[in-house]
Amino acid sequence: MSDPSGYRFHDPALATSPVSADELALLKATLLWSDNDTAALRRAGDILAPQVEQILDLWYGFVGSSPHLVATFAGADGAPDGAYLGAVRARFARWIVDTCHAEQDQAWLDWQHEIAVRHHVTGKNRTDGVESTSAEVPMRYLVAFVVPLTVTIRGFLAPHAADADDLEAMYGAWFKAVTLTAALWTRPYASGW
Amino acid sequence: MSDPSGYRFHDPALATSPVSADELALLKATLLWSDNDTAALRRAGDILAPQVEQILDLWYGFVGSSPHLVATFAGADGAPDGAYLGAVRARFARWIVDTCHAEQDQAWLDWQHEIAVRHHVTGKNRTDGVESTSAEVPMRYLVAFVVPLTVTIRGFLAPHAADADDLEAMYGAWFKAVTLTAALWTRPYASGW
Repeated sequence: MSDPSGYRFHDPALATSPVSADELALLKATLLWSDNDTAALRRAGDILAPQVEQILDLWYGFVGSSPHLVATFAGADGAPDGAYLGAVRARFARWIVDTCHAEQDQAWLDWQHEIAVRHHVTGKNRTDGVESTSAEVPMRYLVAFVVPLTVTIRGFLAPHAADADDLEAMYGAWFKAVTLTAALWTRPYASGW
Repeated sequence: MSDPSGYRFHDPALATSPVSADELALLKATLLWSDNDTAALRRAGDILAPQVEQILDLWYGFVGSSPHLVATFAGADGAPDGAYLGAVRARFARWIVDTCHAEQDQAWLDWQHEIAVRHHVTGKNRTDGVESTSAEVPMRYLVAFVVPLTVTIRGFLAPHAADADDLEAMYGAWFKAVTLTAALWTRPYASGW
């Protein structure tokens, strides 16, 4: 598929993440990451990739029905901006697949940091050229989103898992990957990150 | 049981949390909190309360074997301070039970904020009068800890659950409660919380 507008994974012009490879390794150790998770996440990615639109229908349904969340996608008049919602959605689809399949290397760290900045007041709305009443995604929602982004995935994995153990392995790896992402995306917000 | 040293839940002299009841409600909505979770968490608390020492053995084993985590408990010489580890452990035991049983009201918000400040550079080491080489718990570890604090609990719930649905309900509620706590504990770190 062609890259969505604003998608810059592997763009060498991206800024270098302030998160070091050592910090990433310790962060992964803290959330119990193992090679088994990497393998299970690859399997999960193969299952999820053909279902990204259904997954996003579910997630966008939740966001759209939650005024405090859809406020993030407001235009200059405070009402949800359809083009903004659509542009983010296309990149969100790629995020699902990349989260499962990407090497967690420097290019990936740099891209995670770019996404992080796009939530923060220093970078929000810029990528899509939006005039928005929302200057920033509150950091607490990035943390809280670990729950909906995790629990909703089980139903997409379950029908395609080899067996119960495979399902638990893929679901557990996804949970860790989402939590790792949340931690990385909080980087621009905190002095004591 | 008597209150551990430094335990101040329901102490009217605690500072008021900067998190409002409305912010808490929206945060809970973001992580899909429902009344069923409140009920399931009560049941989980009854199961976990008699097992807190075994749970803490597991958690402290993990922290103790991870140099970047046990560094938080360093004394003035950089080596783990046994008294500091013990004082925190006693409060951590109460946190498990309180997380399951407490009303999430203003007193609880105030206590969560006090705990949050005790991780942050403005409050760490003060409660236990420790001279430590660790001035602050890095915020990213508070987020990452959602994984180990969640996944390790399943084994303590499973043997005592009424059935598979009850286990999933309790485990899911615990996951949400841990994530909610992590979000609240990041409050002192971030300008754009």
